[in-house]
Amino acid sequence: MKENIYDQPEFFAAYSQMDRSRRGLEAAGEWETLAAMLPDCAGLDVLDLGCGYGWHCRYAAEHGARSVLGTDLSARMLAEARRRTNPSAITYRRAAMEDLECPDAAFDLVFSSLALHYVADYEALVRKIRRWLRPGGSFVFSAEHPVFTAQGPQDWEYDAQGRIRHFPVDRYFEEGRRTARFLGCGVTKYHRTLTTYLGALLENGFALRAVAEPTPPQRLLDTVPGMADELRRPMMLLVRAEAAGKTAAGACG
Amino acid sequence: MKENIYDQPEFFAAYSQMDRSRRGLEAAGEWETLAAMLPDCAGLDVLDLGCGYGWHCRYAAEHGARSVLGTDLSARMLAEARRRTNPSAITYRRAAMEDLECPDAAFDLVFSSLALHYVADYEALVRKIRRWLRPGGSFVFSAEHPVFTAQGPQDWEYDAQGRIRHFPVDRYFEEGRRTARFLGCGVTKYHRTLTTYLGALLENGFALRAVAEPTPPQRLLDTVPGMADELRRPMMLLVRAEAAGKTAAGACG
Repeated sequence: MKENIYDQPEFFAAYSQMDRSRRGLEAAGEWETLAAMLPDCAGLDVLDLGCGYGWHCRYAAEHGARSVLGTDLSARMLAEARRRTNPSAITYRRAAMEDLECPDAAFDLVFSSLALHYVADYEALVRKIRRWLRPGGSFVFSAEHPVFTAQGPQDWEYDAQGRIRHFPVDRYFEEGRRTARFLGCGVTKYHRTLTTYLGALLENGFALRAVAEPTPPQRLLDTVPGMADELRRPMMLLVRAEAAGKTAAGACG
Repeated sequence: MKENIYDQPEFFAAYSQMDRSRRGLEAAGEWETLAAMLPDCAGLDVLDLGCGYGWHCRYAAEHGARSVLGTDLSARMLAEARRRTNPSAITYRRAAMEDLECPDAAFDLVFSSLALHYVADYEALVRKIRRWLRPGGSFVFSAEHPVFTAQGPQDWEYDAQGRIRHFPVDRYFEEGRRTARFLGCGVTKYHRTLTTYLGALLENGFALRAVAEPTPPQRLLDTVPGMADELRRPMMLLVRAEAAGKTAAGACG
């Protein structure tokens, strides 16, 4: 269930060649939108679920976070993260986010970049995150968009000449396991609806502060081949939710 | 810009034959989900934007609303509404919702069923609705889902045997006018992203209380041919937002 494809040598080798792996946040089309959703990190205790190469951990540390805990299931990813990002405020821990245990009210910010679609039981994780957050704390995440995960293969529909016709959506309300093609491998992901992504937050003590489907910045649209196709369908869902406090719970539900 | 296709005789004749026109709310696949999102109507002043046959106005009146104002652009729809739904609490007014003017803080509930995708400037309407609502009041609506409106034609992709293959998504981030095929006619609708639907609320004094993509109830899945295909892609987006009060604005944004 907790597939660890990032520790398979061929997959990891391909992943490490991706532009966003080599160049970090500036090569990630969604980063500017996501960065604008983050709170000021100064003085915060931060948890990054599925931290990968640790780019976001480094960002938080460089912006004054008091502590940053980065977790990932992949030993290879964590080795890279330790090699590339070494501010003293950062601790890396190997753990599947489903198994992670943290003290209650330990963090001001829980963050996750493109990892939640690997989790089978999202709602259970949301409940844990709510406990780990202090009142008023933030849960900010990106995940693959339900439009992108619904059918399974995550590929375009092409015409006979190999040109993109459109993006296929199917099985939308059939939540659960999918096998996507990514970097030449079959990767297990979990599809869930927008209703589930947002509803689990609203029903477990969070107020929604922002919901965004990012588009690449103009500089990437202008320079990266194929990037303009990203305007044809949403690939990511970005959410900022705030942990309601004891008082706010009544008012903010 | 404000197309009035419901007053074209051929379209209206076809519309009046639809199951949901003849049988009302019980034939509408989304109604049970939408009803659960409505506040208790007892004693409320209610505005229904794009009221059509007036089924929802009647529901509100029968559930104790103090007043119900139903508005629609179509004279034919309003004539049907007046004929079918006549509790004394209901007033019908012919108006495009973009042109409607109401006093500030006049309503406890603003409701709209499957009409907002006919509006070109959604954000301007959201700002007006916020003014029309009393603090703590609710804006509850259904609209065609961005997945459904993105490409334009709103039809499935079929194989050579005429079987559904999937639903095509395209032009997602290109908001604006589309021509959909509906009841044999070309109908002007407006596509906007989920980001816009929810963001305009969060940025204009609303707190999100519920977001849902409805699925048909089992009794309709079991009895209506083709209804099971509704599980293959989302067709509607349902939202319940609450007008933040002066006090709540600080806490709930």
